[in-house]
Amino acid sequence: MVYYRYNYFRIIPLKGVYAMKHLIIIVFFIIGLTCQAYSANSVPPAPNGITIPQNYKDWRVISMSHREDNRTLRVILGNNTAIDASRAGKTNPWPEGTVLAKLVWKDTVHPNWEKATVPGTFVHAEFMMKDSHKYTKTGGWGFARWTGMNQKPYGKDDSFVQECFGCHTPVKDNDYVFTHPALMP
Amino acid sequence: MVYYRYNYFRIIPLKGVYAMKHLIIIVFFIIGLTCQAYSANSVPPAPNGITIPQNYKDWRVISMSHREDNRTLRVILGNNTAIDASRAGKTNPWPEGTVLAKLVWKDTVHPNWEKATVPGTFVHAEFMMKDSHKYTKTGGWGFARWTGMNQKPYGKDDSFVQECFGCHTPVKDNDYVFTHPALMP
Repeated sequence: MVYYRYNYFRIIPLKGVYAMKHLIIIVFFIIGLTCQAYSANSVPPAPNGITIPQNYKDWRVISMSHREDNRTLRVILGNNTAIDASRAGKTNPWPEGTVLAKLVWKDTVHPNWEKATVPGTFVHAEFMMKDSHKYTKTGGWGFARWTGMNQKPYGKDDSFVQECFGCHTPVKDNDYVFTHPALMP
Repeated sequence: MVYYRYNYFRIIPLKGVYAMKHLIIIVFFIIGLTCQAYSANSVPPAPNGITIPQNYKDWRVISMSHREDNRTLRVILGNNTAIDASRAGKTNPWPEGTVLAKLVWKDTVHPNWEKATVPGTFVHAEFMMKDSHKYTKTGGWGFARWTGMNQKPYGKDDSFVQECFGCHTPVKDNDYVFTHPALMP
């Protein structure tokens, strides 16, 4: 077996111990690349093929809410397109390319302030992605949700979006979005 | 009246129309600089001299809360130092240079979901800035608050920090901070 090393403009055949060293380096390099790719996006896609947006936790705040029916706190973040639209007051409709992220926690009581409700267990991260050409059957929005700290994709198959869309249909007049951007100075 | 122009290494006295042109240019330049400074930070400093952090609305989320005693919703953001500490779980004490921002809104009811509390009127933005050498009398934290959409500095004089610090003293064991970072995947 002969290994090759790319040396400037020539390919030099390598043999013996020197070749083995190179093989080990290459194998470790491949393992490293694989681990990096895995850690970068180890979250499986949703059943409809939507992948979880990278770095969504770094997105900026649009609003928040406290659902007192199911006792959850929510913060709504947006990608740059969403933030620009939100600050310009152009959110009905939201522009193409908008991605809204909703992070949801179960209520808990602040240990030092009993009348303050604060985030407890992390419930899920859910997303709405505006692409009027791609998501024609669900109001121009792609829906996806990943549950828990291990980010398990929600839904057995791609019919799960009917549940999302059904719940959002009452706010059709607001481009199917419940969130109204919070007022900020 | 004689005007001077700095020409490389010599001062040349200028007279008449040429001097007037220079004077007009200088006046417009000063007006321009003043306008720029004003638009960059038109929010007056707090009575203790703290200035409002630039671009705090672009900071990332640490947590949120719903105070059911005074019916307000709050989102807690942090500068990069705060976010790094928060994600590394190193928040007791928070590192030097940490700035925490709390944006507060009065409760209102979501127009399409009556059991959802959402942000209404903007109440204030308040800040805690960690500098153990500068703020020795208030637990190593500088406090400041700007109220309303027009961001009026809170407090008649710098004694207002006693109110802030008094309220935060019960959480001395958590480095005087009420916020516990929300769990995120």
